[in-house]
Amino acid sequence: MVALGGGHGLYATLSAARRLTPHITAVVTVADDGGSSGRLRSELDVVPPGDLRMALAALASDSPHGRLWATIIQHRFGGSGALAGHPIGNLILAGLNEVLADPVAALDELGRVLGVKGRVLPMCPIALQIEADVAGLESDPRMSRVIRGQVAIATTPGKVRRVRLLPGNPPATRQAVDAIMAADLVVLGPGSWFTSVIPHVLVPELVSALNATTARRALVLNLAAEPGETADFSAERHLHVLAQHAPDFTVHEIIVDATRVPGDREREQLQRTASMLDAAVQFADVSRPGTPLHDPAKLAAALEAVRVRGAVPIAPTMPGATPDVDGQSLSGPRGDDPWR
Amino acid sequence: MVALGGGHGLYATLSAARRLTPHITAVVTVADDGGSSGRLRSELDVVPPGDLRMALAALASDSPHGRLWATIIQHRFGGSGALAGHPIGNLILAGLNEVLADPVAALDELGRVLGVKGRVLPMCPIALQIEADVAGLESDPRMSRVIRGQVAIATTPGKVRRVRLLPGNPPATRQAVDAIMAADLVVLGPGSWFTSVIPHVLVPELVSALNATTARRALVLNLAAEPGETADFSAERHLHVLAQHAPDFTVHEIIVDATRVPGDREREQLQRTASMLDAAVQFADVSRPGTPLHDPAKLAAALEAVRVRGAVPIAPTMPGATPDVDGQSLSGPRGDDPWR
Repeated sequence: MVALGGGHGLYATLSAARRLTPHITAVVTVADDGGSSGRLRSELDVVPPGDLRMALAALASDSPHGRLWATIIQHRFGGSGALAGHPIGNLILAGLNEVLADPVAALDELGRVLGVKGRVLPMCPIALQIEADVAGLESDPRMSRVIRGQVAIATTPGKVRRVRLLPGNPPATRQAVDAIMAADLVVLGPGSWFTSVIPHVLVPELVSALNATTARRALVLNLAAEPGETADFSAERHLHVLAQHAPDFTVHEIIVDATRVPGDREREQLQRTASMLDAAVQFADVSRPGTPLHDPAKLAAALEAVRVRGAVPIAPTMPGATPDVDGQSLSGPRGDDPWR
Repeated sequence: MVALGGGHGLYATLSAARRLTPHITAVVTVADDGGSSGRLRSELDVVPPGDLRMALAALASDSPHGRLWATIIQHRFGGSGALAGHPIGNLILAGLNEVLADPVAALDELGRVLGVKGRVLPMCPIALQIEADVAGLESDPRMSRVIRGQVAIATTPGKVRRVRLLPGNPPATRQAVDAIMAADLVVLGPGSWFTSVIPHVLVPELVSALNATTARRALVLNLAAEPGETADFSAERHLHVLAQHAPDFTVHEIIVDATRVPGDREREQLQRTASMLDAAVQFADVSRPGTPLHDPAKLAAALEAVRVRGAVPIAPTMPGATPDVDGQSLSGPRGDDPWR
């Protein structure tokens, strides 16, 4: 399985994915410019380590040493000095990268210490910037302004219209392309839409691999609109902006928490929008009640269902097809499976 | 084997010791206040990690991963920012110590990553300061001045008369006492005499253990006087100041590079001084030609000879006894061994 994303959203996917298989590759955005990662990339010119470190922690072995090192790399230095606020794992990754001069080798080496059986990879081997066209910052609402930097974009009071990577059309990490091509299941999202999800489809070699792989491809929508970059965004709007940024990008299934889109009419409309991505929408219970967080076990079940549906010959997804509300049809006899 | 010391001297002993046995415990001074260690102890209130890190690197496994991690922990961050000059291993040790709240557990954990089969321990579980009475800094040469701090003492243009630990009579690390009691061979030195060697005999529980253990005890003299703290010190003077600081401390053998004390008369005089420590002097070839450095293989042979001589019943060392010039008598038939 390959999981593409960044930050807390990717952590959620990986926490789910590790329940299904040890063979997981995380492909992580590399445009963060805030906090410890921002300080390190300005000081040492490294791929920002924060999201990569989080992904390693999510995949750490369940052994006592694996759990200990997951705690260690996530621990932030205290005090009020030069180290304050840096997670230890960020410093280790930055140091490994100085010694090995290769971000992938650095991640593999720290992954070994944590007993990670899969792999954590940057989506691109060099640090990137994100730039956005943001509306609502000028007195004329039709005017947009260019905002640069992941933190600035994630926290803008304006409306993000479009994002770009700088440099544009960056190379993909070779090992990430290989992992996508070899996967059974590829999952994009959830996560901060403009800064952790969409950046992946702005890397041409990743989009090519995603379209060429024989893997089942799933998109996991966020449980709620995020303040800032996607404030007030509907589920449908998330799909629209993704399709705008990557007209060629398709997925097989889109996992949406059932409570997010309760009405039949809204569900049909979402399915029509999903057809832009050639996708069927799966409404499933994937949230932890009373929180805006994905439940790892429930998300794992939804992802496993996507994989299983891909393991049998299926008809092409029809726009407007009645969605399989919660995957329950799979628990009946095979003869009941409408896709066979 | 237990090796007590600090800095580059201890690194030399450990590089020799690992040729003899994997069962090595390094016991390391904890008063460094310079460089990265000084920055970290002032920022985070940790046991200064520099000398501990060096000892871990010296004992790293010979596997590819062990060698890689030895390189990694020794690597100093580049650039000119907040991290510049910090060896990565110092930051990892400081971070482990914050998470585990136990310097011994932190060292064991990093040792595991490096494949260290032995153990590296601080001589005392809390950071210490060194204070010295230094003569020659006043216009009246009989007057001495109190200088505080390891760096200040090591670089003073004056003459160090006496050093003290602050706080005085600090506790020994329990595991260090246990290792000394269980050892076959205990080695003190070489190293910066006032700041890496003598501090060990200022910890009462270490001196008690050194006197109570059944281990053979060796003292390794420096190959040359160091500029600063021991400028112009003869071999004899090194023994005098050690005995002054720890009147109860004894060793079985003192290893002196043969080229350091070439004349018969000087050798006899050194042996008489060694009797203050109840010690026999072993003049041996332990240096790397053309350098002021100990040769690991030669030092290992000299240490092994100390251990072997302890494995047979021996008469008490007699003051003024003719020293065994280079241990060669041991290579003859056992009947030739004058100690039997």
